[in-house]
Amino acid sequence: MSQAGHRARLSRMARVRDRMASLGVEAMLLSLGADLPWLSGYEAMPLERLTMLVLPADQEAVLVVPRLEAPRVVEDPELFTLRPWSETEDPVAIVAGLVGSRTSLAVSDRAWATFLLGLQDLLPGRSWHRSSLVTGPLRAVKDDLEIEALRAAAQAVDRVAAQLQAGQIPLVGRTEAEVSADLGERLRAEGHQRVDFAIVGSGPNSASPHHEPGTRQIGPGEVVVCDFGGTLALEEGEPGYCSDITRTVVTGQPSSRFAELYGVLQEAQERAVAGATAGRSCAEVDALARDLIAAAGYGEAFIHRTGHGIGLEGHEEPYLVAGNATLLVTGHAFSVEPGIYLAGEHGARIEDIVVAGDPDPLPLNRASHGLAVVEA
Amino acid sequence: MSQAGHRARLSRMARVRDRMASLGVEAMLLSLGADLPWLSGYEAMPLERLTMLVLPADQEAVLVVPRLEAPRVVEDPELFTLRPWSETEDPVAIVAGLVGSRTSLAVSDRAWATFLLGLQDLLPGRSWHRSSLVTGPLRAVKDDLEIEALRAAAQAVDRVAAQLQAGQIPLVGRTEAEVSADLGERLRAEGHQRVDFAIVGSGPNSASPHHEPGTRQIGPGEVVVCDFGGTLALEEGEPGYCSDITRTVVTGQPSSRFAELYGVLQEAQERAVAGATAGRSCAEVDALARDLIAAAGYGEAFIHRTGHGIGLEGHEEPYLVAGNATLLVTGHAFSVEPGIYLAGEHGARIEDIVVAGDPDPLPLNRASHGLAVVEA
Repeated sequence: MSQAGHRARLSRMARVRDRMASLGVEAMLLSLGADLPWLSGYEAMPLERLTMLVLPADQEAVLVVPRLEAPRVVEDPELFTLRPWSETEDPVAIVAGLVGSRTSLAVSDRAWATFLLGLQDLLPGRSWHRSSLVTGPLRAVKDDLEIEALRAAAQAVDRVAAQLQAGQIPLVGRTEAEVSADLGERLRAEGHQRVDFAIVGSGPNSASPHHEPGTRQIGPGEVVVCDFGGTLALEEGEPGYCSDITRTVVTGQPSSRFAELYGVLQEAQERAVAGATAGRSCAEVDALARDLIAAAGYGEAFIHRTGHGIGLEGHEEPYLVAGNATLLVTGHAFSVEPGIYLAGEHGARIEDIVVAGDPDPLPLNRASHGLAVVEA
Repeated sequence: MSQAGHRARLSRMARVRDRMASLGVEAMLLSLGADLPWLSGYEAMPLERLTMLVLPADQEAVLVVPRLEAPRVVEDPELFTLRPWSETEDPVAIVAGLVGSRTSLAVSDRAWATFLLGLQDLLPGRSWHRSSLVTGPLRAVKDDLEIEALRAAAQAVDRVAAQLQAGQIPLVGRTEAEVSADLGERLRAEGHQRVDFAIVGSGPNSASPHHEPGTRQIGPGEVVVCDFGGTLALEEGEPGYCSDITRTVVTGQPSSRFAELYGVLQEAQERAVAGATAGRSCAEVDALARDLIAAAGYGEAFIHRTGHGIGLEGHEEPYLVAGNATLLVTGHAFSVEPGIYLAGEHGARIEDIVVAGDPDPLPLNRASHGLAVVEA
């Protein structure tokens, strides 16, 4: 465990306790998802054996953990104590016992329903909240250590994007699934500990934003949308932060119809990045890209939000979507990724991770936005 | 989508509806986890954008799915209809509308708490159950197609285990993490679509059952516990089934102390496998291994249950653990994996996947149980 990580977690714990007090939340119950590693450095395994940090407003936190997993926990007595449980104990009952008579409880957004239902059975009449009520606005604003980690992840994924744009990753004649696996290997080679996704949509599949890379063979003169990312930790034992980038390339000279579409998209994406300044609302940044795309006649073809927050989780607050009045503040980190999709024909998307700034936003990805023609 | 898969899902849906009726469950709400792909062929993405199958006892099922993901769904109108939702709609409200006035509801065990809390807000006064109440006993008994898939996964992982035992995977001089990555690549090469885990615990780390493979370099004359598995689908578009195997090897002649321990373990594991017959309880099979290990003086060193069910999920019902009175029936599939761990010194585990039979159990893994001495 790094000293910097330890200090950051102490600071986060103090801010969480302050916010619990102001919201009247008497205990946090943290299991799967990023709240637990953000606060403790330890990430729960997605298992039928419950791991849960019980963090009362008025007492020290206790990590309830399967005895089998306990050796993996890096203890930090300033933050929590351990309560390992053995195979014939009931961990839900142990958590309920630690909660005691407290009534206002917040449980991890991603905790499994089976554990929440078990807790609700043993703790009737309580009021239940999402942990993100407390942690969401805090986690959305990255501290220096987190921005450093996001930057390292962005630089690593940029190197893979540059290989793609330079034509170093063969496309024509390979299947989407093969290119996806290749991107994954390169993410690892550039320092990611985990590959989270590598979407490759070629030809008409480029018009499906979350296309599952399959057996389609990429041909010459086609559009290929590549959206890939993984998780990278600054040092062993620290939780990893996410990368996420999209670049669109063409295997041969693009049609004028596609080149025009791409030009609109690039202008819209760069406009939204430049506009991601503190004080603007998430909905306004979404509109910066959307209005320009709509004015060019592609409004119906931009079928998703402009972006999502990113950090320990690939998608987290704040979301750049119509209706979200949240005001950006310095340190908010999120994707800016408009796309234009013409079903059955082709599509394109450009995505960078950006940190909101005052006055200037800080784009973490620096790979070129231009339309790269590869294997022409 | 395969015809065999389609027919299997129709049969499962009928059994689920029968069991809903007998339990008085009025609607199932299926999201993350294996119930959804087992019934529909479609696996929900673990996203903040909700995917949920609403399956009322008295009506056709509706799959509520983000519009972005809808192109990935292979439609099967005999099983469900689609309700795609767009970025500015509220999927929880859509699900609540489909539930209507029904009161007895069962939600996926692994659904995120955030969605359950949202549903509980919009649907007050209902009674909430786990979906496994309905599906658990049904999913635990594998149909022919599932046993075929589990066998294919077991045969693939057996080939990697045989490479390990034959000394084809270099150990001495490499780190645990390097060997783990190598095992993962071999799982893919042998046909797994996904690598789920590859534990490598060497020397004293072999005594930690869920050891995280790290930077420790493996030396000569050491015990190495390797526990690895992934997911393999019989054909594209079908959900994948899990493999899971553990083999323990030594990099040089073992000490007599370890050889004795291993002999006890091997006898205990084979005894439990042979005893996994229909009509025996899960607790009894656990005791078959545990009693023998305890009689040899290692009772305190066998710190986990004997096994877990396996199928679409790596861990599911039935669990071979003290206190579980569930009687095995033909078609129950589970791991048999006793272990003996001497902290600070060494440990060992042997694991096979087995299908309970009448009269004879069917072990799916066939890699040797003997203690392989590699690089001696």
